[in-house]
Amino acid sequence: MIRIGIMGYGNLGRGVECALKQNDDMELSAVFTRRNPDDVKILTAGVGVYSADEAAQHTDEVDVLIICGGSATDLPEQTPKYAALFNVVDSFDTHARIPEHFENVDAAAKAAGTTAVISSGWDPGMFSLNRLYSESILPAGKTYTFWGRGVSQGHSDAVRRIDGVIDARQYTIPVDEALEAVRSGREPELSTRDKHTRLVYVVAEEGADKARITGEIVTMKNYFDEYDTTVEFIDAETMARDHSGIPHGGFVIRSGRTGREEENTHIAEYKLRLDSNPEFTSGVLVATARGAYRMAQAGSSGAKTLFDIPPAMLSPESPEELRRTIL
Amino acid sequence: MIRIGIMGYGNLGRGVECALKQNDDMELSAVFTRRNPDDVKILTAGVGVYSADEAAQHTDEVDVLIICGGSATDLPEQTPKYAALFNVVDSFDTHARIPEHFENVDAAAKAAGTTAVISSGWDPGMFSLNRLYSESILPAGKTYTFWGRGVSQGHSDAVRRIDGVIDARQYTIPVDEALEAVRSGREPELSTRDKHTRLVYVVAEEGADKARITGEIVTMKNYFDEYDTTVEFIDAETMARDHSGIPHGGFVIRSGRTGREEENTHIAEYKLRLDSNPEFTSGVLVATARGAYRMAQAGSSGAKTLFDIPPAMLSPESPEELRRTIL
Repeated sequence: MIRIGIMGYGNLGRGVECALKQNDDMELSAVFTRRNPDDVKILTAGVGVYSADEAAQHTDEVDVLIICGGSATDLPEQTPKYAALFNVVDSFDTHARIPEHFENVDAAAKAAGTTAVISSGWDPGMFSLNRLYSESILPAGKTYTFWGRGVSQGHSDAVRRIDGVIDARQYTIPVDEALEAVRSGREPELSTRDKHTRLVYVVAEEGADKARITGEIVTMKNYFDEYDTTVEFIDAETMARDHSGIPHGGFVIRSGRTGREEENTHIAEYKLRLDSNPEFTSGVLVATARGAYRMAQAGSSGAKTLFDIPPAMLSPESPEELRRTIL
Repeated sequence: MIRIGIMGYGNLGRGVECALKQNDDMELSAVFTRRNPDDVKILTAGVGVYSADEAAQHTDEVDVLIICGGSATDLPEQTPKYAALFNVVDSFDTHARIPEHFENVDAAAKAAGTTAVISSGWDPGMFSLNRLYSESILPAGKTYTFWGRGVSQGHSDAVRRIDGVIDARQYTIPVDEALEAVRSGREPELSTRDKHTRLVYVVAEEGADKARITGEIVTMKNYFDEYDTTVEFIDAETMARDHSGIPHGGFVIRSGRTGREEENTHIAEYKLRLDSNPEFTSGVLVATARGAYRMAQAGSSGAKTLFDIPPAMLSPESPEELRRTIL
């Protein structure tokens, strides 16, 4: 049994807890929280909930710690800190800061002799793997990533900060025509506006100026100004009924050319449609934790990503069984 | 520069030669053939063509030998034989015999201290990787593999052996309704007949009994009897004009459930659409050869599959560059 600790018990931590129940070779052994542990009720009977401050006292109970904090402020601090104590896995997803995060985590993990896998999830994660494989096997071509249809928490939060907005939910939607153009193999140049639209559902305060709210949304720098954005006002009841889920997904499409004159075209498309963004991410984190454990058992240390882990190490099955059944 | 040898110069060997031109860190260093080398004209200037019997005299010129023979009779004999001399890669695709082939190749490679990667291509290969990743991250669910639309050489050859048939081309076609049922997340049970249909184009001898030919095709055991098969008779000109390519492709779809009551559904779909089956396979073989070279450099020996190779080893880019650009 691989004993898994969870650091941070929000959507992601709960998702990891549920995912562990689906993996017979792994078990939850501890949950750490920055809240008062007495206030945190978990689903798994008999597992201790401890203060994050006490993590160092529980290193003997945990083979791999899955760090379920946010990328903006939690993980840059938490992952190096806990990599000094445990083998760890995180889902750090601020793409531009991955090299810096990797260096920080690598230094801590190497010093401690632990294995620390960063940026595991679906993007970065499964999407990254698909980009890597398809660019390696089709070096002449172009790769496209589309996100959605799905809820962007960051964009939803940005709209909620607008005066007169009670609640908001933002969907990122890939443009069908752009997807079809990519699948044609013509390797189109696509602008930000070409690839995605944004759809925002808003619950406004009574008497709020909807035209002003709409204007503030569609012109918001970095969030909406480069997109065609649709704003729809709905009531709180409709929001609760139709938009309480956290679906997401997207596409990685590689269009490549081969042959003597590069006359043949190949399209490799990877598509995710996820009912629950955090639960799918949790599934990737748990499989990655198995890989981290095996890498550590094999004597590795330092920071790693899914790019560094032999795929077989993510599976509970033996290499023989994998070759016999799914190769 | 990684120096690549090609064993066998047919569709696959030519595909590998073309693919090498797209990879700046690799070069073709030798081609081996069972034909008279003087009769084999290759595309790359300055590269020697040698008899397969002389391969042992050229081990110093080749870092990895890509074996481009057929799975039925060539590879079971060739891959162990040449793994005793070179690091090798093959595309052995007889799924049921992979364990036996792996054992034979492993013994030869371990004795010689070489690295031998077997069963690299798209199925087995990219499809296998997708099955492995998606089953590891979504352990509760069901995986479906569909092939096509594409040409099956084996089925085309079987039809050509029927009396009165001059030429034939068989397309395997996935059934749209079955694909949609899988994508719905309902995890349907699908029979062989539900998943694929077969379409056969036949050029018949003048005066041949078309009803008899059709009957022999649709009832042919192991090839057609479990499928709904359509037979169309065309003339030789139409065959040459419309059916000279070797397209293929297919789908690997994992439908998985997560959450406290497994109430959330996730669909991970990988889809290939290939203008040229052998050229795409060649692209996978060449990237795998890079991985074999790096595994060997890192001190590994014995038989491997894509399941054992850290993905980063397939790419010409450095790990730092990969983290910075595509993670």
